[in-house]
Amino acid sequence: MATKNRCAFLNAQHEFTIEERDIPVPKDDEVLVRVMANGICGSDVHFYAEGRLGNFVVTKPYIPGHEAAGIVEDTGKNVKGFRKGERVAIEPGIPCDRCRYCKTGRYNLCPSVVFLSAPPVNGTFCDYICIRSDFLHKIPEDMPFEHGAMIEPTAVAVHAVNRAGFINGKDCAIYGAGPIGLLTLQAFKAMGGGKAVCLDILDKRLELAKALGADEVLNASQCGHIKDIADVVFETAGSPQATAQLFSAVRAGGTVVQVGWPTGNIVAMNIADFIEKELDYVSVNRYANAYPAAIRYICDGRIRVEPLITQTYSFQEIPEAFRFAKENPKDTIKIIVKN
Amino acid sequence: MATKNRCAFLNAQHEFTIEERDIPVPKDDEVLVRVMANGICGSDVHFYAEGRLGNFVVTKPYIPGHEAAGIVEDTGKNVKGFRKGERVAIEPGIPCDRCRYCKTGRYNLCPSVVFLSAPPVNGTFCDYICIRSDFLHKIPEDMPFEHGAMIEPTAVAVHAVNRAGFINGKDCAIYGAGPIGLLTLQAFKAMGGGKAVCLDILDKRLELAKALGADEVLNASQCGHIKDIADVVFETAGSPQATAQLFSAVRAGGTVVQVGWPTGNIVAMNIADFIEKELDYVSVNRYANAYPAAIRYICDGRIRVEPLITQTYSFQEIPEAFRFAKENPKDTIKIIVKN
Amino acid sequence: MATKNRCAFLNAQHEFTIEERDIPVPKDDEVLVRVMANGICGSDVHFYAEGRLGNFVVTKPYIPGHEAAGIVEDTGKNVKGFRKGERVAIEPGIPCDRCRYCKTGRYNLCPSVVFLSAPPVNGTFCDYICIRSDFLHKIPEDMPFEHGAMIEPTAVAVHAVNRAGFINGKDCAIYGAGPIGLLTLQAFKAMGGGKAVCLDILDKRLELAKALGADEVLNASQCGHIKDIADVVFETAGSPQATAQLFSAVRAGGTVVQVGWPTGNIVAMNIADFIEKELDYVSVNRYANAYPAAIRYICDGRIRVEPLITQTYSFQEIPEAFRFAKENPKDTIKIIVKN
Amino acid sequence: MATKNRCAFLNAQHEFTIEERDIPVPKDDEVLVRVMANGICGSDVHFYAEGRLGNFVVTKPYIPGHEAAGIVEDTGKNVKGFRKGERVAIEPGIPCDRCRYCKTGRYNLCPSVVFLSAPPVNGTFCDYICIRSDFLHKIPEDMPFEHGAMIEPTAVAVHAVNRAGFINGKDCAIYGAGPIGLLTLQAFKAMGGGKAVCLDILDKRLELAKALGADEVLNASQCGHIKDIADVVFETAGSPQATAQLFSAVRAGGTVVQVGWPTGNIVAMNIADFIEKELDYVSVNRYANAYPAAIRYICDGRIRVEPLITQTYSFQEIPEAFRFAKENPKDTIKIIVKN
Repeated sequence: MATKNRCAFLNAQHEFTIEERDIPVPKDDEVLVRVMANGICGSDVHFYAEGRLGNFVVTKPYIPGHEAAGIVEDTGKNVKGFRKGERVAIEPGIPCDRCRYCKTGRYNLCPSVVFLSAPPVNGTFCDYICIRSDFLHKIPEDMPFEHGAMIEPTAVAVHAVNRAGFINGKDCAIYGAGPIGLLTLQAFKAMGGGKAVCLDILDKRLELAKALGADEVLNASQCGHIKDIADVVFETAGSPQATAQLFSAVRAGGTVVQVGWPTGNIVAMNIADFIEKELDYVSVNRYANAYPAAIRYICDGRIRVEPLITQTYSFQEIPEAFRFAKENPKDTIKIIVKN
Repeated sequence: MATKNRCAFLNAQHEFTIEERDIPVPKDDEVLVRVMANGICGSDVHFYAEGRLGNFVVTKPYIPGHEAAGIVEDTGKNVKGFRKGERVAIEPGIPCDRCRYCKTGRYNLCPSVVFLSAPPVNGTFCDYICIRSDFLHKIPEDMPFEHGAMIEPTAVAVHAVNRAGFINGKDCAIYGAGPIGLLTLQAFKAMGGGKAVCLDILDKRLELAKALGADEVLNASQCGHIKDIADVVFETAGSPQATAQLFSAVRAGGTVVQVGWPTGNIVAMNIADFIEKELDYVSVNRYANAYPAAIRYICDGRIRVEPLITQTYSFQEIPEAFRFAKENPKDTIKIIVKN
Repeated sequence: MATKNRCAFLNAQHEFTIEERDIPVPKDDEVLVRVMANGICGSDVHFYAEGRLGNFVVTKPYIPGHEAAGIVEDTGKNVKGFRKGERVAIEPGIPCDRCRYCKTGRYNLCPSVVFLSAPPVNGTFCDYICIRSDFLHKIPEDMPFEHGAMIEPTAVAVHAVNRAGFINGKDCAIYGAGPIGLLTLQAFKAMGGGKAVCLDILDKRLELAKALGADEVLNASQCGHIKDIADVVFETAGSPQATAQLFSAVRAGGTVVQVGWPTGNIVAMNIADFIEKELDYVSVNRYANAYPAAIRYICDGRIRVEPLITQTYSFQEIPEAFRFAKENPKDTIKIIVKN
Repeated sequence: MATKNRCAFLNAQHEFTIEERDIPVPKDDEVLVRVMANGICGSDVHFYAEGRLGNFVVTKPYIPGHEAAGIVEDTGKNVKGFRKGERVAIEPGIPCDRCRYCKTGRYNLCPSVVFLSAPPVNGTFCDYICIRSDFLHKIPEDMPFEHGAMIEPTAVAVHAVNRAGFINGKDCAIYGAGPIGLLTLQAFKAMGGGKAVCLDILDKRLELAKALGADEVLNASQCGHIKDIADVVFETAGSPQATAQLFSAVRAGGTVVQVGWPTGNIVAMNIADFIEKELDYVSVNRYANAYPAAIRYICDGRIRVEPLITQTYSFQEIPEAFRFAKENPKDTIKIIVKN
């Protein structure tokens, strides 16, 4: 075991510094994890590029990162079921356990949730981190850590499909073929979905969608107004244009799942379509109880994460990795940083 | 039995004429109903005042009306379970029975539905009408026909609460204290709801809401921005202002039910609130399988319809009734026409 | 505040002794409650009469009781939202918060749940008890403590109706008109139920059922085989005979809810009926997230608990109260002990 | 087109005769289908071997068979969407469309359902049959008719998984590795299931289960009492022993799905386990709205039906096929008859 804990701090001036800190000591119910790989999330890049996202603002140096996998290094005295050396994925939002959201199975909505990497809370771009044991999930010996780092966004996709309700062979359309769109496509198929159409404005992403199981792809910049295309429609692009079109795109009686956060926040929606079709429009804020299924689907190949990894960096290269992510959004699906 | 069938025709020039037609003969699976009372729906008034509503346009004379109760006068040869003299309420949307919406319990979304009073289909402002027997619902001997005419809007309210999902004592806010708002209030309480807050801009409607069980009332023109007021929020006012506020008004994890059709159809919605709170936003297009519960709740007093009847007219007075409805929206909750 | 804490201990020889103990000190997240009233549950009487119930055995003195209401006396330093003097009902099963049952909203199934009064865990037949603050529920100033003690069994009834799923005016039959049966009857009506038929073998209980809203009552010892009587059937009697009849009693497509624990545990069930009717058969083990609705329904009179209280005793009379309960099951619905 | 319609009649003396009849003429809403392949269902064999099943008795010659695929030969005048030459699978239960089961999406429970091959209703062991067009489902050009004949039992499996409710990566155990068990295994995986354990008493069936995706197999005659093995347990074996063990086998909070019809109908169930674990026990009576998903899963290989076909016979060999099925149950999974 190393004696020092490298940590990648991002400050309010959009700069990264890698500093050494002491290795933390797990509390009684915590596990010390040696982080082996991290994915860079779009939200991390937002904080890097703009210093803020929603109500969260970078005012002092903090550690980004919340898509991580690693190895159990030590356990608190009350921890059961984890042994040094086991591989784990980190679920990065720790709720209070006691509010009505926690009590009713929607712990992602806990108002007291502590979410790793939401400034000023530190995240996982470090070598060692302590995590409450019930938010660690074992992964198989033979799962590469880079794949383990992909479980977090896969959990978003699984939760998105869960939010779509009863699937039973229904078909779907997915706006956006970025990491969440491509994982949602695969989660939809893994969970009983029928035909899936993917829409994006980048042809190379659409090719990847096709390779990952899309039955049909449409370049959204070339197809006109979309109407009654599917029973379930996922918006993962965060596009105001796509969002404005959702109630047209879905069929009567269908379900629309908003996963992407549309730029500008306010979108003019066609409520007449919404009523006439008697739709369900539901949103996704992270996930709850989705890790076990996400791990299962990755393990048995129903969800393939490898093709989404477009770049890999070492821990020391975190500044370069973020710079690349910011400057080349069209060439990046998922960047992995390996410790 | 009369020998003639009075029918109230509305033409494209916004005029009513009452004409006599032959009494129709029921098909094998139909019942001939002698209509005894009709409610005037807001949609009827729209067609009267503006000659159109949504995609429906009055191009030739037709008979409005779809909130009706009456007496069985005759039955087709294959009809079972109905006898001359029994009291019935009419469910006015007859679907195809065979499309996937009909097969999955959402017959209100049948693309081939024939809805009485949606021009050019004739409605119930007449003395005699033939209805497929499975869209007639018996009502008790002692239920006044005016109350029977209120079952149709009550079914909308029951369906709205069904669309809200699992209730279990949750509290709600209801925008709009018109007929649908007041029935939704009562349906919510009848179906397990907790505290209910009603909002409207007319104090006298709010007083009625209070009398019908609202725990709290708010004059929407005087209260400022509403935030996190309830777990379930119903929009029954058809107000663009209210609709724009829905995702703010509901609590995280909550459900918003759109019942009213906002003027102008397009509303700027706060998708950021929608995502952050992980909401369910669902709409209501009429109802399916809601009549039995609506009848039950009216029968046992859980839903009181009498206080909603603000005016009563005779059949001959239909032109005056519609003129009054058009000119006095603030003084009218439900107008009943008695044959 | 008193200086001593009276506690009613039950030993393995079926004897009660009332002893004084120190007043406990609340932990950081606990509230010290001064108990004001307790209901005697059938399970308490089982332990008194037989020294065991299921896998739980009385091997050493313990304090029974888990249907309790009281007053906040003191609060741990991290407790928010409770003040000395407020009235509260106690939810008596404290789960671990961290297992998958806790995380998915079914904390009643937590394998580590600590349930007050399940020997050797002490219960609420005492003057002072410390409870984790999130398992205390405020009750109104004007709610008598005896009614507050009735919230716990009401929560069972609310949970039973929740387990029945989508109600929407369906009718029901309820086997057993004891405390749980009579509360289930009222919860069913409060939560949107239609016609309710109650069955018992004691006419005076059936009279009470009628007074509390049953549309029909049947003496189960006189009516023959019951077939296709309702869409939802609740078994609250713990009767093997009733349980064996459930799949016959319910209509095709219906739901059967097993609340009572049938003597002998093993019942010969007609699986042919079960399959042919495509039924849902669900069971109830206490409750989760049911207290707020239970309190609401009692507060606004949708559920009346007063008529169920057949006897009241003082704390000193606990031995007499249990003796009476054991010897007079037919004359007892709910016995309340007031501190 | 042939001029005669070969029909395989089974009489009350357990004998088959192949007779020629006129080719039927489709009604306005019917399609004339040229049958190309049939599967033999266990229920067909029951009628052949014992002359009865449940309440159905063979009293006069009738045509068995309800697992069929074929080619559109002609269409009634009101039929839309089908053209001569298209391939179709037949959904063999035609409901009334108008009862409350039909109206609420559970048309399989329609008390007036006409089910092909339920004596005295004729089934599909013939060359030509007329079917209401909404109970025909198109299959792709390249799907072999033998596979088309497997859609019906696949629909049972899909419906069984639908009845299990929210899956989300849960694990399951399946009692019975016959045709329905093996299809349920695959449907479970196709619809989001996690680990699956199959139990049977025949090792060669278990080997097939393994080849079709079972993560683990257990010979039920060698493993002892099964306890808490999975979150979802399917009984497809129709075994009273297995059925009696279901509430033990499933984990707390889990769901048990009864698909098989246990010999003898009455089974002693452990209601104590049922209550303590707060289970959902649901049954399956055929299917509703399951064909589209079943077809989809077979088309894209998520469900493989080919490995289940153990024998193939020609139409003329129907008597031999049934004799073999009766005498060699252990060597038979699915027998296909090709016209």
